[in-house]
Amino acid sequence: MGDQRFEQTIGAIAPLDEQAMSAARARQAQLTKPAGALGRLESLSVQLAGITGLLRPVLTPRQVIVCAADHGVTAEGVSAYPSAVTAQMVLNFLHGGAAINVLARQFGAGVTVIDTGVLSDLPDHPDLRQRKVRRGTANLRIGPAMTRDEAVQAVTIGMEAAGDAIAGGARVLATGDMGIGNTTASAAIAAVLTGQPAALVTGRGTGLDDAGWRHKIAVIDDALACNQPDAADALDVLSKVGGFEIGAIAGVILAGAAARIPVIVDGMISTAGAAIAVGLCPAVQPYLIAGHRSVEPGHSRLLAHLGLAPLIDLDLRLGEGTGAVLALPLVDAAVATLNEMATFAEAQVSGKS
Amino acid sequence: MGDQRFEQTIGAIAPLDEQAMSAARARQAQLTKPAGALGRLESLSVQLAGITGLLRPVLTPRQVIVCAADHGVTAEGVSAYPSAVTAQMVLNFLHGGAAINVLARQFGAGVTVIDTGVLSDLPDHPDLRQRKVRRGTANLRIGPAMTRDEAVQAVTIGMEAAGDAIAGGARVLATGDMGIGNTTASAAIAAVLTGQPAALVTGRGTGLDDAGWRHKIAVIDDALACNQPDAADALDVLSKVGGFEIGAIAGVILAGAAARIPVIVDGMISTAGAAIAVGLCPAVQPYLIAGHRSVEPGHSRLLAHLGLAPLIDLDLRLGEGTGAVLALPLVDAAVATLNEMATFAEAQVSGKS
Repeated sequence: MGDQRFEQTIGAIAPLDEQAMSAARARQAQLTKPAGALGRLESLSVQLAGITGLLRPVLTPRQVIVCAADHGVTAEGVSAYPSAVTAQMVLNFLHGGAAINVLARQFGAGVTVIDTGVLSDLPDHPDLRQRKVRRGTANLRIGPAMTRDEAVQAVTIGMEAAGDAIAGGARVLATGDMGIGNTTASAAIAAVLTGQPAALVTGRGTGLDDAGWRHKIAVIDDALACNQPDAADALDVLSKVGGFEIGAIAGVILAGAAARIPVIVDGMISTAGAAIAVGLCPAVQPYLIAGHRSVEPGHSRLLAHLGLAPLIDLDLRLGEGTGAVLALPLVDAAVATLNEMATFAEAQVSGKS
Repeated sequence: MGDQRFEQTIGAIAPLDEQAMSAARARQAQLTKPAGALGRLESLSVQLAGITGLLRPVLTPRQVIVCAADHGVTAEGVSAYPSAVTAQMVLNFLHGGAAINVLARQFGAGVTVIDTGVLSDLPDHPDLRQRKVRRGTANLRIGPAMTRDEAVQAVTIGMEAAGDAIAGGARVLATGDMGIGNTTASAAIAAVLTGQPAALVTGRGTGLDDAGWRHKIAVIDDALACNQPDAADALDVLSKVGGFEIGAIAGVILAGAAARIPVIVDGMISTAGAAIAVGLCPAVQPYLIAGHRSVEPGHSRLLAHLGLAPLIDLDLRLGEGTGAVLALPLVDAAVATLNEMATFAEAQVSGKS
């Protein structure tokens, strides 16, 4: 069942709609501004037309899907915070007190949390999908984080959540993450997929000091040496050094593309998920919208690997989807200018002399 | 009368409120996120507290003030568009069809236009302040763009408009410009105030080709040689090579700071206005909020000169206030996270181990 959804979703991802993109480009050329003067808002409006197949893309309602899980590698002391914070922050999300809640309210998005593998039990809540693959991954320093079947299961959980959000009306999705230890998994994925040494893709996460940072790099080096992930096989990479929430994020991205719904990708962890998604289905690449650039060094390398330029670059490193949701107003602005500006003819404005 | 408002406004600009900034910093440290994880949103929230003197700054209603004027230097063929477009675009603003109208509606801002010196007559309209200093500046290639008295008048017009907007309830202002030829005036100001050669601060404006761009640089070089503006005297710079709308923008910025109301500064032309404002009153610098980075090369040099990092960097080069209004949601986000996030204690989340 999981396998079927997994294969069907990937198989449903089609190229962007060239006709809608041409129509959007033609309209941009007639609007009352010098050609190209709205810069990346113009190219974003064309991409959104191509994703949705609509000259006037619809961007509400919108839903953030925050994927949460714990990580066995925390046993190695790779995070400044204890694993218990994963569940505590999920509760904070459900109570509406976290940064992602504040920003989602500000910009008119709902927040759904998926428990893809938090260590502890979580209470029933209308905004929480309880879909633990397992209570935390295994320690990737000494073996695979999960089995290949579990990797498929994690991706499929994200696909299901995105599918339900879209069935519920969502016209834009944003990805988010919560998981103490997940910058270690993401840096390991970045090292494998970009071919860079761990030292160049590993950051300080929630706040490691120098010694902690060097230790984190050593843990990742050990994980890669022990697991030998195959960069050409995204499921192998995800299962060897990934996380359940990273797999679910890949699933959200793939399901959004399959349904022609824009998905805004958050920072380091979400972009590791996007890289897994592209590995599973290269056709998803043109659907990707990078919300922001994180200060995590691996994030810039993942963005370059995926050919993405982020919309926001404000030194954030929080995750949760915050960098994706901050980009929502820019996505709105791209579509609003495309839809609502007067043309030179309508406004009787002279063209270039 | 003009002179009195000019001097009083400048004299009223006080340092940022250190007590409000300390309170904002202390609150940021208690919110449920790793220290500094919201990056520049955190420092922006502290700056907004310092500007307003409030731990919980109020950001609505908000008003864009678009300052419009014509430029005698267009006689030199420095723009791809005819001067008639200035008035045509003002009418487009009043009819709500321009990019600035669309973005202002999207982000809940009103739009006021000031005619500070458009060549042609403009109709009465509730959103238009008719305050022509003169019908276009003189050609700065062959003499001063305006008199020193006219420079004071232009700044004062902006102060009055900002004062009226604030009296009408505005709690955030954004600056914008319209004026065919005004990237030439702004590049000339940038050259004088940053000490860079014209070739390094001059761009293609609304769309010059290579020959047009080289000609524009030559016109600016001639203007600087002919007028010899004194970089230490901002009114001299404004009168020799500025524009009426650039002076008015400086006035909006100064009046906002005097009233402790945040002003978001748009791109190249608005930042030239900000540089004039800082020249008139160095104490205004900590009040400045740079909305975006334009592709005009002089803009980056002006931002560096003023010590500003822009919030948005999306290759825009439209003016009108578009880059300032696009930053409004980020300003909202900075304050919303400061105000609405749960603290570690409230959410019972563990701290750093």
